[in-house]
Amino acid sequence: MEALSINDVTPVAIDDATAPGLAQHKTAIQGLFKRRRVRVKELLAAGLSTVGHTVTVKGWAKTLREAGAGAFAFLELNDGSCFTGLQIVVAKDVPGFEALINSGGTGASFCVVGTVVESPAKGQLIEVKATEVTLYGDVADPSTYALSKKRHTLEHLREHAHLRPRSNIHSAAMRVRNAMAQATHSFFNERGFLYIHTPLITASDCEGAGEMFAVTTLFNHVKDGNVPKTADNKAIDFSKDFFGKPSYLTVSGQLNVETHCCALSDCYTFGPTFRAENSNTARHLAEFWMIEPEIAFADLSDDIDLAEDYLKYCAQYALDNCAEDLAFFDKNVEKGLLERLQSTIASPFVRLSYTDAIELINKPENLKKGKFEKKPKWGDDLGSEHERFITEQIYKKPVVLYDYPKEIKAFYMRLNDDGKTVAAADVLVPKIGEIIGGSQREERLDVLEARIKEATGHDPAEYGWYCDLRRYGTVPHAGFGCGFERLVRFVTGIENIRDVIPFPRWPSNASF
Amino acid sequence: MEALSINDVTPVAIDDATAPGLAQHKTAIQGLFKRRRVRVKELLAAGLSTVGHTVTVKGWAKTLREAGAGAFAFLELNDGSCFTGLQIVVAKDVPGFEALINSGGTGASFCVVGTVVESPAKGQLIEVKATEVTLYGDVADPSTYALSKKRHTLEHLREHAHLRPRSNIHSAAMRVRNAMAQATHSFFNERGFLYIHTPLITASDCEGAGEMFAVTTLFNHVKDGNVPKTADNKAIDFSKDFFGKPSYLTVSGQLNVETHCCALSDCYTFGPTFRAENSNTARHLAEFWMIEPEIAFADLSDDIDLAEDYLKYCAQYALDNCAEDLAFFDKNVEKGLLERLQSTIASPFVRLSYTDAIELINKPENLKKGKFEKKPKWGDDLGSEHERFITEQIYKKPVVLYDYPKEIKAFYMRLNDDGKTVAAADVLVPKIGEIIGGSQREERLDVLEARIKEATGHDPAEYGWYCDLRRYGTVPHAGFGCGFERLVRFVTGIENIRDVIPFPRWPSNASF
Repeated sequence: MEALSINDVTPVAIDDATAPGLAQHKTAIQGLFKRRRVRVKELLAAGLSTVGHTVTVKGWAKTLREAGAGAFAFLELNDGSCFTGLQIVVAKDVPGFEALINSGGTGASFCVVGTVVESPAKGQLIEVKATEVTLYGDVADPSTYALSKKRHTLEHLREHAHLRPRSNIHSAAMRVRNAMAQATHSFFNERGFLYIHTPLITASDCEGAGEMFAVTTLFNHVKDGNVPKTADNKAIDFSKDFFGKPSYLTVSGQLNVETHCCALSDCYTFGPTFRAENSNTARHLAEFWMIEPEIAFADLSDDIDLAEDYLKYCAQYALDNCAEDLAFFDKNVEKGLLERLQSTIASPFVRLSYTDAIELINKPENLKKGKFEKKPKWGDDLGSEHERFITEQIYKKPVVLYDYPKEIKAFYMRLNDDGKTVAAADVLVPKIGEIIGGSQREERLDVLEARIKEATGHDPAEYGWYCDLRRYGTVPHAGFGCGFERLVRFVTGIENIRDVIPFPRWPSNASF
Repeated sequence: MEALSINDVTPVAIDDATAPGLAQHKTAIQGLFKRRRVRVKELLAAGLSTVGHTVTVKGWAKTLREAGAGAFAFLELNDGSCFTGLQIVVAKDVPGFEALINSGGTGASFCVVGTVVESPAKGQLIEVKATEVTLYGDVADPSTYALSKKRHTLEHLREHAHLRPRSNIHSAAMRVRNAMAQATHSFFNERGFLYIHTPLITASDCEGAGEMFAVTTLFNHVKDGNVPKTADNKAIDFSKDFFGKPSYLTVSGQLNVETHCCALSDCYTFGPTFRAENSNTARHLAEFWMIEPEIAFADLSDDIDLAEDYLKYCAQYALDNCAEDLAFFDKNVEKGLLERLQSTIASPFVRLSYTDAIELINKPENLKKGKFEKKPKWGDDLGSEHERFITEQIYKKPVVLYDYPKEIKAFYMRLNDDGKTVAAADVLVPKIGEIIGGSQREERLDVLEARIKEATGHDPAEYGWYCDLRRYGTVPHAGFGCGFERLVRFVTGIENIRDVIPFPRWPSNASF
């Protein structure tokens, strides 16, 4: 295997991981042994027990400064494994000192071998006294480096999305985003749900084509700016397209995942969804991720229980696994974030019918306090201003609204006995507003077919496969959709949805 | 909350889950208590310890037959939680017996309350003696039910993809698919990797538009079959499109995930990718899922180690968590599947250079044995026939080929010192052929720019953001891509890739 080796500078990550005091960190540290480095996260976690040991660390300079009239340098090295960097002291006589000093500093990459020592500085238990520094890559011209040491605006970071994972705020957001994805899979897996990958491209007639992106290969067959046309020359000839008919990017995996729920019981999807909405707000993306559980033998009450359990699990998971990153957000992004998350977990969510919510908002004292642009009456969709007022001003905790007028909800939601409302529920949380929308699904074939006609104007036959689930062994079932980026905003306090996804897409923006 | 309740027929899943003998299954069973049922999987796992207890189970009839001259009926109930159904004996005097008998049988759905008894039948420890049966949904006309009791072809199941999760083979495939997804997240999460969602829609110039799907909203602005055109009337006016320029569905998340790897160290993507390839084979899909880890401070050897660890972890995970489903596949789909998976884990993968592989194939005895359509010489891409010959005939175990000629590999792969080969590696496994393709990435800016010119003919400036990763603090890094459906085929033995994904997409097929 000689041909495969690069000139790696060190043979081991730490001299003796089985030494007393290190034993408890053995697994975490050994997991990387093959890779000949210790991650900063595990090293800092092992703390004083590592003092005296020789370690190898690799990462990027967060800061670099000379001190003692050029006799040594302080290098803060970050490898992305955690928020805090590792302080490294490099004396002038250490091999690699010159390269370090001429590396351009912030952003340059290094391998450092050194001895762990107790740190005399405040706020850190240990630091590394370097015995050898190897430069991987410099920043030849720091004046052109978009992620230089100074503070940058969120707009600037977005424009350099390929480098922004090197910023404090984006790296912390990405670690929390990862934690929320892992929490999602753990939560559902532990409860026996199956992860089902619903399709992204669909030619199904069930989804309205209104705000959908078309998927096509017809642009490969353009002549004089024309895509292939039908014989009468009046319309696009989709029979020549890849799928033989108009095809779109999905707006939800729900209808598809119901097919598996109605055979395998509890399922969930977690994948990208798309909305070709011409909206340039801080709350919308053209491409975003969504979690959609679907539970069999369940009613709306079960569905709300699941949504509440899920959100609490995610908040607890973030507190348990992302303490350092959340502390940063609490201090710099949203004062009171930690308290908000703790209070999310502490008590049951409020459950309130839509009808009661309308009444509540229209109380004179609330109308006065809320200063709403619009005064909602029964039958109206609630605006974001009303939703946030209820959860932030009135209850100061998550609120579940349920039983909405059928006119403002989708055809597949179960009609209640009153004939006027459907078994739908939205979960509202402080800071975000609506974070989850769900419903019990209409499982009665005749009612579903009537609702399809009434709500969509279509022939139920166009929804044949969806109706089949009610035709053959129908069961009561329910589910919800949770916007993943909203969840990440919820646990980080980050305002703009473009800052919680690696490469945001919105009108006129699909770079990288 | 009264308004939220449906008329659910039973109050509890099992009468006393804390009874002696049930204690060890408490967690599994209690997890569903809110939902007032016991899953078949947990009930069968608890086995004889449940005898004498009253339980509630819910699911679909796999089979239904009357016996004892109409004095009772045998119902095999499946809820998708495991392969095996639960045997239920319903005596004529049990409430719901008539509805059961007239339900249409296979496919109808029920709630059953009953007492667990020791089973006199072979192959099962317990069965349930029903005390009450409630029909949720019947199969009114069994002659129209596509998933009737008889054996169906895989083609038939594909045509009824919305019902095929009710078949033995597809439900087993979906449980294994779920297990492989959970295994993937566990594997990387345990090793400190961050899950990064790379974008699906991209207008980046880095990806060749050859076999990509275009994403557009221009079809919403069609006049007389024409999409908007440029002023000279000769080309499509993409400035009117949603993203303001031609945009596509991604063929790989690699280039994007490298940005986060070069800041956060070890990352991975796991998401859908697309290929507008006009191929109608059992090995290709237009939409499939891919796992792409990217590791920092790593060379090709580290990358191969990771790939080998990952595949072994997945095989072990399937053996540990899907024993029942794998036994079915071993018996009905691929004889010897279990042995193949065990031998995958048992010994190190063979590692062989491309150059040695070419020499090996060209040995007279191998040419004779292989009866190849094509005799490969150095510089040729290996065909599937050669890859499978090496892994299935010569070594009979997984084989990693490395150091390929640069002409047949991508521009971003690291140029070896010989100037002729690149640090690329493909993992070949019996039954599938290539399952993983990876490489060390070119981290030297000057070499990368030269390779972009040479291999793509483009100006390196078009790859500006990708080159920036080498311009500012470059580090050696590597990664690979694993086709998720190939992985599922690998652990199930299923031949056709269309049978391991819920809703397969291929030319002219995007239904559901």
